[in-house]
Amino acid sequence: MRVEILCTGDEILTGKTINTNYSHIARRLGEVGLDVVWGTVVGDDRDSLLAAFRLAGGRADAVIVNGGLGPTVDDLSQEVAAEACGVPLVLSEYWLQRMTESYARRGRVMPANNKKQAMLPEGAEFIDNPIGTACGFAVTIGKARFLFTPGVPREMRRMLDEQVIPRLLALGGITGVSRLKRFHSFGIGESRADEMLAGIPGLAIDGEIKLGFQAHFPQLETKLAVRGADEADLVARLAPVEAEVRRRLGNFVVAEDEQTLEGEVMHKLLALGQTLAVAETFTGGNIAARLAPLAGAETVFKRGVVTRTLPTEGASAQAAIEAAAALRRESRASQALAVLVQLDDGPDRPDFGATIAIGIADASGTVSRQARMVGGRDWVRVGATELALDCLRRHLFGLPVDERIDFERR
Amino acid sequence: MRVEILCTGDEILTGKTINTNYSHIARRLGEVGLDVVWGTVVGDDRDSLLAAFRLAGGRADAVIVNGGLGPTVDDLSQEVAAEACGVPLVLSEYWLQRMTESYARRGRVMPANNKKQAMLPEGAEFIDNPIGTACGFAVTIGKARFLFTPGVPREMRRMLDEQVIPRLLALGGITGVSRLKRFHSFGIGESRADEMLAGIPGLAIDGEIKLGFQAHFPQLETKLAVRGADEADLVARLAPVEAEVRRRLGNFVVAEDEQTLEGEVMHKLLALGQTLAVAETFTGGNIAARLAPLAGAETVFKRGVVTRTLPTEGASAQAAIEAAAALRRESRASQALAVLVQLDDGPDRPDFGATIAIGIADASGTVSRQARMVGGRDWVRVGATELALDCLRRHLFGLPVDERIDFERR
Repeated sequence: MRVEILCTGDEILTGKTINTNYSHIARRLGEVGLDVVWGTVVGDDRDSLLAAFRLAGGRADAVIVNGGLGPTVDDLSQEVAAEACGVPLVLSEYWLQRMTESYARRGRVMPANNKKQAMLPEGAEFIDNPIGTACGFAVTIGKARFLFTPGVPREMRRMLDEQVIPRLLALGGITGVSRLKRFHSFGIGESRADEMLAGIPGLAIDGEIKLGFQAHFPQLETKLAVRGADEADLVARLAPVEAEVRRRLGNFVVAEDEQTLEGEVMHKLLALGQTLAVAETFTGGNIAARLAPLAGAETVFKRGVVTRTLPTEGASAQAAIEAAAALRRESRASQALAVLVQLDDGPDRPDFGATIAIGIADASGTVSRQARMVGGRDWVRVGATELALDCLRRHLFGLPVDERIDFERR
Repeated sequence: MRVEILCTGDEILTGKTINTNYSHIARRLGEVGLDVVWGTVVGDDRDSLLAAFRLAGGRADAVIVNGGLGPTVDDLSQEVAAEACGVPLVLSEYWLQRMTESYARRGRVMPANNKKQAMLPEGAEFIDNPIGTACGFAVTIGKARFLFTPGVPREMRRMLDEQVIPRLLALGGITGVSRLKRFHSFGIGESRADEMLAGIPGLAIDGEIKLGFQAHFPQLETKLAVRGADEADLVARLAPVEAEVRRRLGNFVVAEDEQTLEGEVMHKLLALGQTLAVAETFTGGNIAARLAPLAGAETVFKRGVVTRTLPTEGASAQAAIEAAAALRRESRASQALAVLVQLDDGPDRPDFGATIAIGIADASGTVSRQARMVGGRDWVRVGATELALDCLRRHLFGLPVDERIDFERR
């Protein structure tokens, strides 16, 4: 099935707003096995919209239209859809009542111009928006089914998952349920992860369980998209593959699904009833900034110290251990993490590097990790932050802290 | 002149990469007075590319194509352009030699597949890429001039400004020079800034000097796009308007052009020969993280402290002053900044708020600023970080620290 995405709106067309809606829709469709073959961006302009509808209607089987469902005069999607279908706009009494009630519940009167949002092309299929005033709808233009969604990301995302994707799967004769299992790792690049997962039965880019990667620098997300006849069938297919992926990626997996690296560290500290103090040099508050806002940090996070001054011996393992031990004594935290970064001399360049020394002290003693990273000042900062959090995670979970990662040079 | 943007590549089409190249190109064109009227995304697919070239060639006067100029087999732009023009690909001896020399200078031999990048449609206009192996080119397809640019953002951006935009301006019969003057402000929203700048002669969204805004949460960027016959003419037009904008936005302007808020704070501290210590609560290292990486921070930034514990009286002005004074005594820094954030009780919601107290201590005494912000935990954190840095800037530059901003509630 050929699916197209058509994004409307001057903010998108002029580049003022980056088109993250497009990439979200395309990614989600790919994850459920639907392929996007064409993307179009047009502004809030009647002629362009009509031309774009007709072109896409001649090419595609299904078109997701995003935007142009608002209450103002430059929101043209319903009007132009009606024109393309050769039908009038008619009032959806149902949606008008839903909007009126929704305003009433918040003690407000619905502004008159919202009525426009209940005007749909005659014969259109209604698509519910449970969290906004812009309802969706579907019509057929040319040989394609057009599904209209609002531009507000939160509303679009929910409607895409709950309303649009099920309709597209039905259109394409794809039945059953789907799930996306995600692993977040640190320390391995996409090509190494691909190698580590080679040969798992049923798992491939075009396999029964679709394998995908997305780099969220410096983390890598490994995604398994799976379909099943029903929930039991899906679990039966996914479970062995999921377990094998987890085993192969091993200690590099820092979190799964909605979890985060810093969240896992925080949960473990809470579970152990321990507290934490952090001393940072070049990472300048970035480690503290990841931990301090989390729920539970009030209890766990005792102290963060940011300084630019390295010990005289630089970023050695010994210096990091001593810094961690001193921080633990001063702060009286259960765990003390010290991160020393010694930058190379010279100007910032793509091959600019640094030596990173990480020390952790707790009641049982101290551990250290030293690594050399190159890639410019910003990458060193980001890499050192992630490495430090990951060392702490590994230490707390009883894993080796000195496993070689792809991003270091020796 | 009708300009279109055509982005190619599976990574963009499938949403794996967010299409920031599109928004950059569209914004830059808008800033020099060129209007983008249509955007297209297609994958690394011969049929789609050819169809997209023909459609755009029938609609537009000029088309910027981005991507598909790499050395691998899925890079199809030159091939399909030649097909659309009905001409063969021919080797550019000039570009082949440039590439070979560039590899030789780095002591490397050019891989054989790079030769593909010197194959251009016969009769194509060469467009230089001074920093990469993917040269650009221009051909005419249908009624439109097509300008091909590489997908690597750094290369595309430089070629767009130096090579593509001048050609487009010439095509559109637009002569002279252009400049974009930028003001970065904190504390005013887009609609208020628009009001503050109302009535300046020659300055409007469609005026002689084009006014534009872009929100970089929580900062606002105010942009003046100006054209002139030559540099002297441009300066003569811009100078009085620029001065008036600076006067009207007044103390809210935190930086201009390439400057940043934290950079201005750092420069001032360096110029004064002063040092700084920062104590943060809920902003958890974010303030330190903005300052610590800057050039000169080695000298200026004495100490950052992150804690979750508020003084017993909460985020009062008095508590912030006392915390700043204590920090100054302990750290012996010239300037001490203390930021106390007292969150409301209850779950995170869009109207979740906090009271923020900022204290600054230096040799001349102490100042404080208290504000109430709502908008959820993340917004409070971002807002408090910006407010604290802005208070420090205002204090260092002798400006009032307690000017009301749009983002606070009273």
